[in-house]
Amino acid sequence: MALLQQVDERNLMEIGQELHQFASELYPICRSITGDGIRETLARIGKRIPLQISEVPSGTQVFDWTVPKEWNIRDAHIKDSTGKRVVNFQQSSLHVMNYSTPVRARMSLSELRPHLFTLPEQPDLIPYRTSYYKPDWGFCLSHNQMLSLTDREYEVCIDSTLDDGYLTYGEFCVSGRNSEEVLISVHACHPSLANDNLSGLAVATFLAKLLIGRELRYSYRFLFIPGTIGAIAWLARNREKANRIRHGLVLTCIGDEGGFHYKKSRRGDAEIDRAAAHVLRHCGEASEILDFSPYGYDERQYCSPGFNLPVGCLMRSVWGTFPEYHTSADDLKFIHPQQLAGSLRACASILDVLEGNRKYCNQNPYCEPQLGKRDLYRSTGGQTIGAEINARLWVLNYSDGEHSLLDIAERSGLPFSMIYDAAELLKQSGLLGVATGSSGAESGSR
Amino acid sequence: MALLQQVDERNLMEIGQELHQFASELYPICRSITGDGIRETLARIGKRIPLQISEVPSGTQVFDWTVPKEWNIRDAHIKDSTGKRVVNFQQSSLHVMNYSTPVRARMSLSELRPHLFTLPEQPDLIPYRTSYYKPDWGFCLSHNQMLSLTDREYEVCIDSTLDDGYLTYGEFCVSGRNSEEVLISVHACHPSLANDNLSGLAVATFLAKLLIGRELRYSYRFLFIPGTIGAIAWLARNREKANRIRHGLVLTCIGDEGGFHYKKSRRGDAEIDRAAAHVLRHCGEASEILDFSPYGYDERQYCSPGFNLPVGCLMRSVWGTFPEYHTSADDLKFIHPQQLAGSLRACASILDVLEGNRKYCNQNPYCEPQLGKRDLYRSTGGQTIGAEINARLWVLNYSDGEHSLLDIAERSGLPFSMIYDAAELLKQSGLLGVATGSSGAESGSR
Amino acid sequence: MALLQQVDERNLMEIGQELHQFASELYPICRSITGDGIRETLARIGKRIPLQISEVPSGTQVFDWTVPKEWNIRDAHIKDSTGKRVVNFQQSSLHVMNYSTPVRARMSLSELRPHLFTLPEQPDLIPYRTSYYKPDWGFCLSHNQMLSLTDREYEVCIDSTLDDGYLTYGEFCVSGRNSEEVLISVHACHPSLANDNLSGLAVATFLAKLLIGRELRYSYRFLFIPGTIGAIAWLARNREKANRIRHGLVLTCIGDEGGFHYKKSRRGDAEIDRAAAHVLRHCGEASEILDFSPYGYDERQYCSPGFNLPVGCLMRSVWGTFPEYHTSADDLKFIHPQQLAGSLRACASILDVLEGNRKYCNQNPYCEPQLGKRDLYRSTGGQTIGAEINARLWVLNYSDGEHSLLDIAERSGLPFSMIYDAAELLKQSGLLGVATGSSGAESGSR
Repeated sequence: MALLQQVDERNLMEIGQELHQFASELYPICRSITGDGIRETLARIGKRIPLQISEVPSGTQVFDWTVPKEWNIRDAHIKDSTGKRVVNFQQSSLHVMNYSTPVRARMSLSELRPHLFTLPEQPDLIPYRTSYYKPDWGFCLSHNQMLSLTDREYEVCIDSTLDDGYLTYGEFCVSGRNSEEVLISVHACHPSLANDNLSGLAVATFLAKLLIGRELRYSYRFLFIPGTIGAIAWLARNREKANRIRHGLVLTCIGDEGGFHYKKSRRGDAEIDRAAAHVLRHCGEASEILDFSPYGYDERQYCSPGFNLPVGCLMRSVWGTFPEYHTSADDLKFIHPQQLAGSLRACASILDVLEGNRKYCNQNPYCEPQLGKRDLYRSTGGQTIGAEINARLWVLNYSDGEHSLLDIAERSGLPFSMIYDAAELLKQSGLLGVATGSSGAESGSR
Repeated sequence: MALLQQVDERNLMEIGQELHQFASELYPICRSITGDGIRETLARIGKRIPLQISEVPSGTQVFDWTVPKEWNIRDAHIKDSTGKRVVNFQQSSLHVMNYSTPVRARMSLSELRPHLFTLPEQPDLIPYRTSYYKPDWGFCLSHNQMLSLTDREYEVCIDSTLDDGYLTYGEFCVSGRNSEEVLISVHACHPSLANDNLSGLAVATFLAKLLIGRELRYSYRFLFIPGTIGAIAWLARNREKANRIRHGLVLTCIGDEGGFHYKKSRRGDAEIDRAAAHVLRHCGEASEILDFSPYGYDERQYCSPGFNLPVGCLMRSVWGTFPEYHTSADDLKFIHPQQLAGSLRACASILDVLEGNRKYCNQNPYCEPQLGKRDLYRSTGGQTIGAEINARLWVLNYSDGEHSLLDIAERSGLPFSMIYDAAELLKQSGLLGVATGSSGAESGSR
Repeated sequence: MALLQQVDERNLMEIGQELHQFASELYPICRSITGDGIRETLARIGKRIPLQISEVPSGTQVFDWTVPKEWNIRDAHIKDSTGKRVVNFQQSSLHVMNYSTPVRARMSLSELRPHLFTLPEQPDLIPYRTSYYKPDWGFCLSHNQMLSLTDREYEVCIDSTLDDGYLTYGEFCVSGRNSEEVLISVHACHPSLANDNLSGLAVATFLAKLLIGRELRYSYRFLFIPGTIGAIAWLARNREKANRIRHGLVLTCIGDEGGFHYKKSRRGDAEIDRAAAHVLRHCGEASEILDFSPYGYDERQYCSPGFNLPVGCLMRSVWGTFPEYHTSADDLKFIHPQQLAGSLRACASILDVLEGNRKYCNQNPYCEPQLGKRDLYRSTGGQTIGAEINARLWVLNYSDGEHSLLDIAERSGLPFSMIYDAAELLKQSGLLGVATGSSGAESGSR
């Protein structure tokens, strides 16, 4: 179980701090679905793992959508009559509604009011708002700050540009023995929000790093993309590659203190769904499995009925259900080294299951083989056997060419790693052979 | 969702009172499986909806059964020696065992005793008893009254006739675009018992009225029939028509204060079973779904293995489980306007599901279509979407020609009406097309 | 339901005492997987039922295993310097590790220590230990006794032989109309342990006795065999016969005070699995159904993937889970007449289900047949029907050639015996015919 081992060989808290450190580095950047913010973000990921950058011109048709103009912003503020910046983009990238059109004007509070977004029920927090496809401008601020504004004239400035340009995304690819692919997809478009989705960016980057230089069964593709339009653009331009995706995970909101939530793919019983559920059941943390629903992150696109790819979504707290979601409270204090490292461990374990899951054939299917003469059993009878020997019996009994190691792990209640180790041992003893032509078996999928 | 709307446009309590009023009008009539009581009952239903009356001669062979002689009764009593009527048919049609042969005699209490039916454990109630197929006579009275009879001679009179005649039933039919039929079946043979089944007669009559003059997908057939022998007679004489039944409901005991019970058809997963379960889950009242069992009302015949029709049974309290069942306590106070109206609403909602349930094909199956440019999405991003938009995403994602709107309603947990409305809107936007050749789709079933 | 009836015609406590008596008779014998102990055991069973004895020579190859040398033991002891037997095989056959090689030596306690087996956490009990396949010797004793041994010289004697000889097992066979077989398998190799498995030996012997002289549907084979190697030897030598096994039960640990546990066959939904679960649900004792797992008794071999026979395992307390397991506390006080008799009843009921389970065809599938005219219904209407009549309706409704009587018993919640009786009555009335060609129907399986 090589990937998890690679994580566990190091001090977990140290890895967690590195993950948090990377999120902190990315936090101040004002990202959007296009523009220099996401370019800068990808550049910093690219220092850690080799990243291939794609630029899709504005106006490109991608299925039912059109790549929008590129948005960039230098500065924004609301100044009061004394010239004091009462709302200042330099303090938080959330203060400007993402994709705001440029504006430079003086106006009364009542004229300004329709352009101010607040959260009356969370009066101290700045909301995160966007207007990608309807030209508009606005400021986001705390409700209390809004209430403190007096009715006089304000100077309003959004120094942004919305011009023909590009939509940018990054890909990290590593080849395995098999051309079939595992997809890891993270959205990289949200500005200063830590759990959503600097947590996903950091964990995906570190997960990718684990794969470099390894002998792998599958090929892996990591997408660091703007949400929705990015996934749509990638799918529209890579239909051939999409066909090679055998398993996939969207990673989002995986740094907070909540237990894990895994949202199943539209198929509901894909191998990734079962692998994720199995790993979470054994990970030692609270976890819950959720049925697929069409609202969410980019699994929406991968699981649209025309593609119906086996792509699930791994989260800790579910987006939309925690009060910090899409507010300024989703900051660097909301994500934690320990949880980031735990999420990396879970992802590594899931990939280990995908890499190791196969169907075998017991070469001695009539009665049990005599494990004792091969030193695979305990020598003194009368005592109950241990879990390692039990795992061997499970693997032997169910390796009939029909049941995969994951099937056997599920039935037995034993962790996949123990079942896998038993299978390796039995294979070395000549008691197991790889099942030929079985779906999911490596031989059948090259 | 047109039928429910038609109910809800009026004051619900008013409808409930009309339903109760109709039950009250029918209450005093002494009905049986044949004779003038059921004729009179059908005549009064026929004043509200066009009813086609059939008369099947005594002696007609219907499958394994024979239509019995026609039973009519004018009067019956037990007089004591002073000439006082101690048991008087004029006071309650339950006092005479239904189908009693004529008798006129003087006898001692000990001779009379074997012909007296009482309920020792409910000593104030008169039981309902019948002897359709074994010639016999008897009186039903409260156990306390029986105990008060002293041991002297009584004059016994049952002024009934049991002669060759007819079995009578009524049919209401309305044609839809489709020759496939929805069957609503109610037994009309019980004498002065309100919940069982004046409640069913009243609700079915009003439900039929809702259909008149409407543009309908299915054709509808309402049967007002004597229990068991009536259903058997209809099926024996209409095997061709029985083949056209796609969905069916038996209505009984739907006026009392209990929550709903729906007993599934023998098939267990018929569309009617799923439609009824869905409607009851969302109706705001307590409800329970029961598996099919072969004992019950006329679903026994429709679901006999040779027919195996998709016919379930909608009740409030389940017959046989409430103490008033088949006693004089099942009177007009036992049924209530509010519950009668609620039952009509539930029935209308179930028919709305049957009428509206179809499979569609998302015309943009690769990634989500851009709902925003069609004004079908919220314009400011960052906030969670509402249920109406969510319903559109559900319909789009699962409209792959395999999932019906009812499937989608069940998966999403949203009410069918909301899913239906979303589908109508998406159809108007050109985003949905009707799935061709799909089972359950209208196009395939004309 | 003939077999259960045969049990219930006698006084149950009396049967229980006979079962316990038989276990007591077998208790002192030192059994092993080969040798005179098991021969003597089979001889005593052979006095009660006709038993065919097989002897398989040492060295015979049986699948991946080799029949070991035959082990016999006359005496064994540890004497202290005063000549007193501190550990004495004559007092308990458990004192010697089963299959100990001969030894006759004087040695210090420290030299002896590695050959002493105790249970530190159950310091008063003697453990049961074996070393069938690794030549070794040892004594088993209570931990307290071991602690009381002082550090001086001991005289150690195991007067055993381990020579070329035979593995012995017994078979009881009875022919039915059908050559398909029901297998009952019990291990007969454990020395003085009452629940494991004198309980199984006694119940199987009495169960076999019930079958003698009866008209039976299936043929029955009872195997009294050494665990593991005996089942493997039988399967290796009887592959043809193994193919005829349609249902099977391993009986073990069925005399203690615990509720029943039935471990399903590897198939999980075999008829034996459903029959056992049904009988236990209705037996009036606590019971639990366990999924198959590859560790256990001889179901391990019958359910190896090459055979995958429909063989489950009936127990009361599950081996390995009760503290008396494989210790001297599993003695004659640990098993009880009442529980032994209850286990015999459960086994008889399970065989009754297998014998009686068939698929029928309702000869009147269109609507219900009129049961009243055949005196199969109650004559006065209005009252709820009883369970016997209800059973008839269940049988009629589901006898469509697809549902077996066991299917119908499961659906209805009624005991199989009541469903079976209803079917017999309906068959006599001409209302039921045997389904032709249906799997599980007798006609199809001759």
